[in-house]
Amino acid sequence: MAATAGQVIVCKAAVAWEAGKPLVLEDVEVAPPQKMEVRIKILYTSLCHTDVYFWEAKGQNPVFPRILGHEAGGIVESVGEGVTDLAPGDHVLPVFTGECKECAHCKSEESNMCDLLRINTDRGVMLHDAKSRFSINGKPIYHFLGTSTFSEYTVIHVGCLAKINPLAPLDKVCIMSCGFCTGFGATVNVAKPKRGSSVAIFGLGAVGLAAAEGARVSGASRIIGVDINPSRFEQAKKFGVTEFVNPKDHKKPVQEVIADITDGGVDRSVECTGNIDAMISAFECVHDGWGVAVLVGVPHKEATFRTHPGNFLNERTLKGTFFGNYKPRSDLPGVVEKYMNKELELEKFITHKVPFSEINKAFDYMLKGESLRCIIRME
Amino acid sequence: MAATAGQVIVCKAAVAWEAGKPLVLEDVEVAPPQKMEVRIKILYTSLCHTDVYFWEAKGQNPVFPRILGHEAGGIVESVGEGVTDLAPGDHVLPVFTGECKECAHCKSEESNMCDLLRINTDRGVMLHDAKSRFSINGKPIYHFLGTSTFSEYTVIHVGCLAKINPLAPLDKVCIMSCGFCTGFGATVNVAKPKRGSSVAIFGLGAVGLAAAEGARVSGASRIIGVDINPSRFEQAKKFGVTEFVNPKDHKKPVQEVIADITDGGVDRSVECTGNIDAMISAFECVHDGWGVAVLVGVPHKEATFRTHPGNFLNERTLKGTFFGNYKPRSDLPGVVEKYMNKELELEKFITHKVPFSEINKAFDYMLKGESLRCIIRME
Repeated sequence: MAATAGQVIVCKAAVAWEAGKPLVLEDVEVAPPQKMEVRIKILYTSLCHTDVYFWEAKGQNPVFPRILGHEAGGIVESVGEGVTDLAPGDHVLPVFTGECKECAHCKSEESNMCDLLRINTDRGVMLHDAKSRFSINGKPIYHFLGTSTFSEYTVIHVGCLAKINPLAPLDKVCIMSCGFCTGFGATVNVAKPKRGSSVAIFGLGAVGLAAAEGARVSGASRIIGVDINPSRFEQAKKFGVTEFVNPKDHKKPVQEVIADITDGGVDRSVECTGNIDAMISAFECVHDGWGVAVLVGVPHKEATFRTHPGNFLNERTLKGTFFGNYKPRSDLPGVVEKYMNKELELEKFITHKVPFSEINKAFDYMLKGESLRCIIRME
Repeated sequence: MAATAGQVIVCKAAVAWEAGKPLVLEDVEVAPPQKMEVRIKILYTSLCHTDVYFWEAKGQNPVFPRILGHEAGGIVESVGEGVTDLAPGDHVLPVFTGECKECAHCKSEESNMCDLLRINTDRGVMLHDAKSRFSINGKPIYHFLGTSTFSEYTVIHVGCLAKINPLAPLDKVCIMSCGFCTGFGATVNVAKPKRGSSVAIFGLGAVGLAAAEGARVSGASRIIGVDINPSRFEQAKKFGVTEFVNPKDHKKPVQEVIADITDGGVDRSVECTGNIDAMISAFECVHDGWGVAVLVGVPHKEATFRTHPGNFLNERTLKGTFFGNYKPRSDLPGVVEKYMNKELELEKFITHKVPFSEINKAFDYMLKGESLRCIIRME
């Protein structure tokens, strides 16, 4: 039992005081974990587009002041009432969505969309008492995605924590907390390409490259990267991408370009941009008879997916996925083991590292499109 | 070897001389089968909506005079050059689509959309020489779907014939040739409901009821029939349908009605109408996390499927199917065995029977919506 258990911990956290303004490192009070909650010492966190999106807060309900951050690795400091699965010292990955293990989704083999702990981007407080565990001089600072990992200590619902192998390097596996698993799982759990098959990946950011890593690991023989930014093509080769299509280089729709070079279409496609036209192309570029397209990217609220229904009747399948269909607590430990067994690679995703005091640099790298993942070292 | 082998056979066929006019029983000459073709003596045939659709020829290229018919059972009379899989006396089901066993689709475990023998509604001639095998006084009478079963004898590509158990009653299993397998396969091969699950069936015609039979056989605990014709509800009970929803009885969209009565949506849905609004409803009525919707009905050429992409991202799946994903030659013999083993029921689909001379009555029954299947006895 840590000496701090049951006590308020004062530590450094990067507070987003308002939309789009640099984070400020502040001394925050972190209250002890309540029922079914766990207080975590964060060792490493990384920056994901979703942090930037909610920091910019364009077109959303702004929730400020807030502690962002949801990709991370840490160690349990103390646990609240009712927590039996975790104990101080356990190594964990926080996840922006959870697994209560009791709802219909958690009991279904097919779903990971827990009713209780499903992602909620508007909520800035804990479920138990609708209060924040963070404060500065008694004034609440709001949570983000139930994780708020841009803090030396944070409080998280036990259902949003995956207990992992303590030998796993947290400065690497922290990226499995969100982006990596989202893309990798979309391919290996949902698209499920067979050995020797062709896979198109739309969007060559970190999630798309994780989807490509899934295709590589699955033994796909052709991995076709689609992106409107040609500067991403060189980097993507490291991720097993074998061919590139830039839609801007062609007059005809990209689905037709892909059909031309693949004798009718790819076996699988994974859409990681959230752009509605890319979603439609990703569906229409799969082969009739057996093609499966998987949507990962989050679209605009008012987007409409449109296609001729004949594209379905010719035996194409369209699926969506959320967090790569992984159940956070049940499945993440196994994904970490795949890394430990060298069945998948993480190092190539990590392009930058900064100390916590320079966290705003991570935002700069991402906004300039320079980074895939920037690891932020807390200590 | 039949005495007729290699000879032209003169027999009765029901000729559609022009769109929408009653068929006329004529003496037609049926040429011997050419390379990879088989001449079949039809014993029973049944009428399917697709026959009526191409007989009415509204909005299609009219191909007349033509011999319609594609659901049937018969016996091989003689075989053409290169046919080794079938011999005179074999019992067969003709199928409107084929299985060449050599193309990428036939070699794929996932597809039944043979490149060589895929359905072609415009072609009125044989593949081998682009000629018809039917004539009257030397004038060609066109084929339909490569089957033309409204004739005492017909010529069919060997790839469109399923060799079945000779003990199977052809007056029953003939309906497996198209409609039954289309609906039944959509459920058991594509939607794959688990025991105890809920399934919505859109459209309670023969194909929809075959889909319901698939749900019953799969052990679905709730089978919700959706149709705008309430007169179909009583009959559907025989097919295991447990509940009914008539979209016309509700102000809100039927997908919301179904979500209300199923705690968020059905586990599976199968759309058998081809109406685009029903397709959208069938997709949107499945549960997030695990719901699978399967499209069977053929839509209008200009229809557009529209939905919010978030419906996919919440882990719903949309698939289409063609002939219930059955490969005609490989899979139909096994479906016939399921009937022989009493694992599925066919009798309840057969509502009418007429002799060949009264084939136009079968059209009347279907046009009035009185029949599910009307069996036409050739002898």
